Amino acid sequence: MSEPLPVITAFRWVPDFVKGHVRDVRVRWALEEVGQPYQVRLVDGVSVKAAEHRCLQPFGQVPTYEQDGFTLFESGAILLHIARTRSGLLPADPAKAAAAEQWVFAAMTSVEPAIMDLGLVNVFEADQPWAEARRPLSVKRVRGRLEDLSKRLGDKPYLEGEFTAGDLMMACVLHGLDGTGLLADYPNLDAYVARCRSRPAFRRALAAHLADFDQTPPLAA
Amino acid sequence: MSEPLPVITAFRWVPDFVKGHVRDVRVRWALEEVGQPYQVRLVDGVSVKAAEHRCLQPFGQVPTYEQDGFTLFESGAILLHIARTRSGLLPADPAKAAAAEQWVFAAMTSVEPAIMDLGLVNVFEADQPWAEARRPLSVKRVRGRLEDLSKRLGDKPYLEGEFTAGDLMMACVLHGLDGTGLLADYPNLDAYVARCRSRPAFRRALAAHLADFDQTPPLAA
Repeated sequence: MSEPLPVITAFRWVPDFVKGHVRDVRVRWALEEVGQPYQVRLVDGVSVKAAEHRCLQPFGQVPTYEQDGFTLFESGAILLHIARTRSGLLPADPAKAAAAEQWVFAAMTSVEPAIMDLGLVNVFEADQPWAEARRPLSVKRVRGRLEDLSKRLGDKPYLEGEFTAGDLMMACVLHGLDGTGLLADYPNLDAYVARCRSRPAFRRALAAHLADFDQTPPLAA
Repeated sequence: MSEPLPVITAFRWVPDFVKGHVRDVRVRWALEEVGQPYQVRLVDGVSVKAAEHRCLQPFGQVPTYEQDGFTLFESGAILLHIARTRSGLLPADPAKAAAAEQWVFAAMTSVEPAIMDLGLVNVFEADQPWAEARRPLSVKRVRGRLEDLSKRLGDKPYLEGEFTAGDLMMACVLHGLDGTGLLADYPNLDAYVARCRSRPAFRRALAAHLADFDQTPPLAA
């Protein structure tokens, strides 16, 4: 390799229920799909909010991407950058590449907001007095998206036939429903997520994500 | 023109409080910035959910984009497609173009979900018994994003110095705070949104968006 390896950031420690869901998984998976080795710089809950990290990521989050002086944040933008500069995640035909990219946006802007709202109900606002009363509204919105997506996927293996960056992101987003039981009501989507997650590149990415965590929480946690 | 004009979809009628906020504004603005004439096909609340439209947009929404047999949905994907195939919205340098695109994702995936949640509180769940109690949590999340974004923008006119597709999307997303008074607490962001919206291309796009609405609601509304 003449170029220096890309460096991504990931958390040194997270609670068990967050493991597998941090967004560095998306970037690791993309790098594995295109066969690009990478390095990881681990950060913690304090350093991620410090000024030095915020130069890379203004919202104090992970992942970030750095290579040879080039820096990028936002998992969606990093995914598209990797997909466009290496082969394996986007068709060569520009119209087909645009179709794949629209699924990255569909995953992150049409599906994920509904799933994140259910995350508020089930996790982040679970102790609030309104959590139980709000859940049906939130579940209904998620089901609306799943219904539409299930119909569009039909019996295809992937959203545009062949696996693309769009499937990578959609599988990560739908994995956010893990533990809710909702996906089981849409068997083709359930099988689709399993199909995506059975890819060797994903297995390697998940293993590396999990292996990088410290086993014990920091003192401040 | 040898190529047929692109055709986008927009709503024939929406309630007054939604005018200016429908996502076809984003696509019209992009087309105006690059100097690309376009045609509009108006749809209504029934036809947008019908099978024919869902072939173009699986979630039954607007806008869609069609040109010479090529079709695309998701305002973010349409924006990037326009920006990449015409000049005026992305720098020619690939690293700078990627930096601009990361702001499209930052707007839609880091900022907009918080603003949409406040929209639930203030509009779509305003009549629910928990609305008042939830508002402080939702406002706090929006303020967190605005604080970070305000610091990153600093005294620059645009997020990466020159106006890009990232500013177009961020200005549209921040406009979602209209009526909440929150933006006024971040004077540089407030001025930034006004700066973006004062661009002649935006003024033309907004005027066309507003002119296309029927003045009277359909019988079913």
